[in-house]
Amino acid sequence: MPPNAFFSGLSRRSLFSALAMLPAFSGAILPISASAQTAASTGSPLPSWNEGATKQAMLDFVAAVTREGSPDFVPPAQRIATFDNDGTLWVELPGSTQLTFALDRVKALAPMHPEWKDKQPFKAVLENDMATLAKTGEHGLAELVLASHAGMTTEEFEKIVVDWLATARHPRFKRPYTELAYLPMVELLAYLRSNGFKTFIISGGGIEFMRPWTERVYGIPPEQIVGSSIKTKFQMRDGRPELFRLAEMNFIDDNVGKPVGINEHIGRRPIAAFGNSDGDLEMLQWTTMAAGRRFGLIVHHTDAEREYAYDRKSPFGRLDQALDAAVVNKWTVVDMKNDWKRVFAFE
Amino acid sequence: MPPNAFFSGLSRRSLFSALAMLPAFSGAILPISASAQTAASTGSPLPSWNEGATKQAMLDFVAAVTREGSPDFVPPAQRIATFDNDGTLWVELPGSTQLTFALDRVKALAPMHPEWKDKQPFKAVLENDMATLAKTGEHGLAELVLASHAGMTTEEFEKIVVDWLATARHPRFKRPYTELAYLPMVELLAYLRSNGFKTFIISGGGIEFMRPWTERVYGIPPEQIVGSSIKTKFQMRDGRPELFRLAEMNFIDDNVGKPVGINEHIGRRPIAAFGNSDGDLEMLQWTTMAAGRRFGLIVHHTDAEREYAYDRKSPFGRLDQALDAAVVNKWTVVDMKNDWKRVFAFE
Repeated sequence: MPPNAFFSGLSRRSLFSALAMLPAFSGAILPISASAQTAASTGSPLPSWNEGATKQAMLDFVAAVTREGSPDFVPPAQRIATFDNDGTLWVELPGSTQLTFALDRVKALAPMHPEWKDKQPFKAVLENDMATLAKTGEHGLAELVLASHAGMTTEEFEKIVVDWLATARHPRFKRPYTELAYLPMVELLAYLRSNGFKTFIISGGGIEFMRPWTERVYGIPPEQIVGSSIKTKFQMRDGRPELFRLAEMNFIDDNVGKPVGINEHIGRRPIAAFGNSDGDLEMLQWTTMAAGRRFGLIVHHTDAEREYAYDRKSPFGRLDQALDAAVVNKWTVVDMKNDWKRVFAFE
Repeated sequence: MPPNAFFSGLSRRSLFSALAMLPAFSGAILPISASAQTAASTGSPLPSWNEGATKQAMLDFVAAVTREGSPDFVPPAQRIATFDNDGTLWVELPGSTQLTFALDRVKALAPMHPEWKDKQPFKAVLENDMATLAKTGEHGLAELVLASHAGMTTEEFEKIVVDWLATARHPRFKRPYTELAYLPMVELLAYLRSNGFKTFIISGGGIEFMRPWTERVYGIPPEQIVGSSIKTKFQMRDGRPELFRLAEMNFIDDNVGKPVGINEHIGRRPIAAFGNSDGDLEMLQWTTMAAGRRFGLIVHHTDAEREYAYDRKSPFGRLDQALDAAVVNKWTVVDMKNDWKRVFAFE
């Protein structure tokens, strides 16, 4: 983190990448696949996953660690599974939901800030000039984040997030962002929990941006969310206690930060980890490079028709080192196009 | 926190108070009460609590928030209860278990540090000169903490804590420290959980000092422990990932830090909070000064015979503002001498 920059509850890497991606994606509104299959309920676990090596690897792992007497048996209390959020559990293109939220917040607050009309990066946001916005770089992003994420109580921020999600729609799918959770991954979360696992999100995104909706969408409660955060301050105002959100970074939960965040919040080493970018590399290493049966998985975005296709060369969610490490460490790589029978619940 | 001082996973207030207390308590080895009663199993909840207003207040609260159709009903997912540790769940005198651990560690490491024989605060520790040690103040304490809590991996530190607890004995009770949990509070934890509550520890003590034993002693898993912490760093060493403990403070989970720690780790406001000192004041305020039925409780140490008696005037675990606030906010105050039928399981 540059000493003078503050990033509010957001992954610097993810957000800056998202910022850089905006011009490329503006206007690229693709149709939803008309050929999305509706999975027949078979009664077997993971119905939205096609049969094959990927699905079998997950079933084999769960069987091995849950079968009493198995050499790989793991007691339920130690069955910790950690999931990245953006691009692993829900759509992260065209520009990260949280960045879209920040831009919308700046527009909503603009009437109270007439000076923004002539001041970057706000001017670019208000004029929808994404190319200029991207050029403002880290400093511009920090200003946007502070203007949109700090300066209110935790309860006020939660309401802002909930209200925004109620009306915001994804530019391509024309759906609320919370409907853009990947159905196969939601099934996987439930399958793991039904086998005694405790599921956590370990995201570069803002912890307070996720908590208002993760229980409803993923079945993961607020206390099992780990993310980036700004500092808060306890104070009494008019005789009532409150936590006020400060314009100061607390923790960046990405890359090398993910194992640190896992240790701070969970205090146990996971036995399974799920990600989709180089930001998840260290979490996957920390989880799998240890004694006992372990499971690492990468969601590889190979489906431009139903979702998006991007990996090593993408400025967003770069997946380069982690794809190489997957071979060395025998992590399972999901081929979204071929492994997923359905992508979304609404299909 | 003074800008140049580092405190490792410990509450500054608690530790400094503990340090000041050491001379007064050295040699004050009191006998265990011979008249400890053995509670007959009655089949009713909280058998180690005497009947009376305190016990009834707890039963009434739990009944109100768990009874379907009650105006005070709280869904299970929102039944969050937070507990201080030192002096609330286990004995904190004569000098905080974690400080005792730090002193023992310094002695154990002394052969590798011959310079300590002539250097304060180490010299005072090695000579058992607690009066001089107390005079070294914050700076001395910081040096002790760094020497004993940082400079190793998280896994190495866990083993050090486990090994120490296996042999260390409390100077008065001659028992392992983990046997000095208060039986009535252990019953209360279990009673709350049997009524759908999720129980958390929110302690000024070090998070990694508690996690190795809280599941066994209190039934609270590592991921439900919040405490003070030092920073850790992810690194690969000899091709294996590790988290290395740095000589740099991360978070002090005491006083105004407790609501901050609760929000960071749990992300919901508790509906019940339990403490025993002014270090718990803000946690109790944050928990109880909000809409809906709430419960605040203070353990008042009134039993010099079976445990200890201390409150407002004690340099350790000062209980002054919180006792006044208890009256205003209608928090329940436990009179240990009269409310607890038994104090420890070994009685």
